[in-house]
Amino acid sequence: MQAARFYGPGDIRVEEVDRPKAENDKVIVAVEWCGICGSDLSEYSHGPVAIPTKPHPLSGEQMPVIMGHEFSGRILEAPPGSKFSSGQPVMIDPRLNCGKCLQCSSGHTNGCDKWGFLGLSGSGGGFSEMVAVSPEKLHALPDSVDLAVATLLEPLSVAWHAATLSGLTKGNCGDAGALVVGGGPVGASMIYILRAWGMKHIFVSEPSPTRREWLGDIVEAVFNPMETDVSSECRQRTKGVGVDAVFDCAGSQAALDSAIGSLKFRGSYVNVALATPKLALPCQMMLLRELKVTSSLAYNDADFSEVVEAFTSGQFNGVEKMVTGRISLQEVVQKGFEHLVHQKDKHMKIAVSPKIRG
Amino acid sequence: MQAARFYGPGDIRVEEVDRPKAENDKVIVAVEWCGICGSDLSEYSHGPVAIPTKPHPLSGEQMPVIMGHEFSGRILEAPPGSKFSSGQPVMIDPRLNCGKCLQCSSGHTNGCDKWGFLGLSGSGGGFSEMVAVSPEKLHALPDSVDLAVATLLEPLSVAWHAATLSGLTKGNCGDAGALVVGGGPVGASMIYILRAWGMKHIFVSEPSPTRREWLGDIVEAVFNPMETDVSSECRQRTKGVGVDAVFDCAGSQAALDSAIGSLKFRGSYVNVALATPKLALPCQMMLLRELKVTSSLAYNDADFSEVVEAFTSGQFNGVEKMVTGRISLQEVVQKGFEHLVHQKDKHMKIAVSPKIRG
Repeated sequence: MQAARFYGPGDIRVEEVDRPKAENDKVIVAVEWCGICGSDLSEYSHGPVAIPTKPHPLSGEQMPVIMGHEFSGRILEAPPGSKFSSGQPVMIDPRLNCGKCLQCSSGHTNGCDKWGFLGLSGSGGGFSEMVAVSPEKLHALPDSVDLAVATLLEPLSVAWHAATLSGLTKGNCGDAGALVVGGGPVGASMIYILRAWGMKHIFVSEPSPTRREWLGDIVEAVFNPMETDVSSECRQRTKGVGVDAVFDCAGSQAALDSAIGSLKFRGSYVNVALATPKLALPCQMMLLRELKVTSSLAYNDADFSEVVEAFTSGQFNGVEKMVTGRISLQEVVQKGFEHLVHQKDKHMKIAVSPKIRG
Repeated sequence: MQAARFYGPGDIRVEEVDRPKAENDKVIVAVEWCGICGSDLSEYSHGPVAIPTKPHPLSGEQMPVIMGHEFSGRILEAPPGSKFSSGQPVMIDPRLNCGKCLQCSSGHTNGCDKWGFLGLSGSGGGFSEMVAVSPEKLHALPDSVDLAVATLLEPLSVAWHAATLSGLTKGNCGDAGALVVGGGPVGASMIYILRAWGMKHIFVSEPSPTRREWLGDIVEAVFNPMETDVSSECRQRTKGVGVDAVFDCAGSQAALDSAIGSLKFRGSYVNVALATPKLALPCQMMLLRELKVTSSLAYNDADFSEVVEAFTSGQFNGVEKMVTGRISLQEVVQKGFEHLVHQKDKHMKIAVSPKIRG
């Protein structure tokens, strides 16, 4: 079958590889669509970052691995007695976890000591025709679903998890509002989660004019941090109170500083920007407002299930707008990775399919 | 009456001042004992820090102010119809707050927009013979209580509040344990609170040999951070899990780094060191363990009441050991401030009384 494998920075090759085998009760899924994630771009630009250069403890594989972890598909082959049937549409929770460590045993599978991802750590990935997946990582979808849009369930799970860490809960988001710093695919996912949770006032800070225009429809106000004092704007628009939570999807020092200045007493700052380097904590402000600072790592089983449920029950109204490009697997490098590297802000999410021809 | 007032760094004068007046339903308390706090030492060494140099919004006063905010006393004069009677022993919650701002209205009186303290912000203080106190800030004590020991209820409230911010609760402290960084008066108060809450394993990191010896009796293990890798010790003693919470009563970068390395997945770091400058956040470790970082600011009404209740019901067994010196008000500079500046680790808490002669 055809698959896109990572050989090094700037070197992803679409090539012929062996079909996955249906061993250990795994289900063979025929991939329909797979989104290109910001972490895929990091690997392409300056990887290997998370891609293993020695055998991964769970997959046993190392570079070159098949990429792509935001993928949907249809059941191709299920073991006898499986609850899945041939042709059934599914979304894949791409995480690999040991199931045995302290975190796995206590429901925090995102913190697994050996964690990995299909599409990054070996065991196949979404930029290919087929993947063998453990049945507990499959989520059945209704036939009516656009499977390119369904790939968004993965970044939406990232955002859902971050929202849970803020201390807010669905339907109980306080009155003050939230600030999302950085309006790329993670920031946009954050916004759709906050809308679904009933957040009354959502503000976003984003330097790109193209993205600001895109975001204008789904939030109360969009700020350009190059021209506006985001902290002052947030405080003014919340009658001096400050926002309940800030979700930092940018991860820079400037983002943290504006975030901390925007929060109300006991507000939460959640870092959702995976690759943040060391940040200087503004201790005085943190103390005077007793702010809480945390970082969000992927998502756990409950998050993914809740996002699938929210999606299939229509709670992410308009989210399909996030899929701004659809290309074939053969085009993944030139019309996918290269395009995003050079014109990042022209797209929210490019979906890739092995089923179409480009 | 005699009182100790702050005129500038190194310049505290015991001098004759006017008696406080029983205006606005205030109760006149005759001070029995008042502890010297680390923040008092900061004022003496390099103040004014929190002491106002222009009229404070709540007291209307500025330097020179009467110092001392950890004080107990006996009712001298209560307004007609008061629930307090002459001679009754009381502990004073020394905070000034407006009662009107958003934080005061929502129970977070510690975050009052105008916050102040008796003994720092004007309106009298504990290093004097008498103070006029609002009745809602008075906590009645049993006759049997040693009123020098009762002054510890103030630093114990600081520690109690920090404990609530960790996410732990009394009687429900998890199995892993806690690390206290810095074993001075705040660290020791933290330990007595954690003991009262039922924390199974308490570790403390403290560079001073004198203090380490003092602390040995009340914790499971005392580490010297100059010789020991505190993170490794904590992980080893918790079977690789890490501790549930770290209370940083030192506030240095080294303290933060060892703290972060000691925590289990989703553990809490609470900064209880008021004067911490900017700290560099170890983002990668925070992300991989989804750690929570927060700062604790004084205490609120509920904390103080709960600490008084815990104290009078005997839950701080052995806490009287923290009072390591008793001196007269006349001696407050030479045998109090000067002694603590030059031999800080020889004492936990020096209590000062206007009722004894030195």
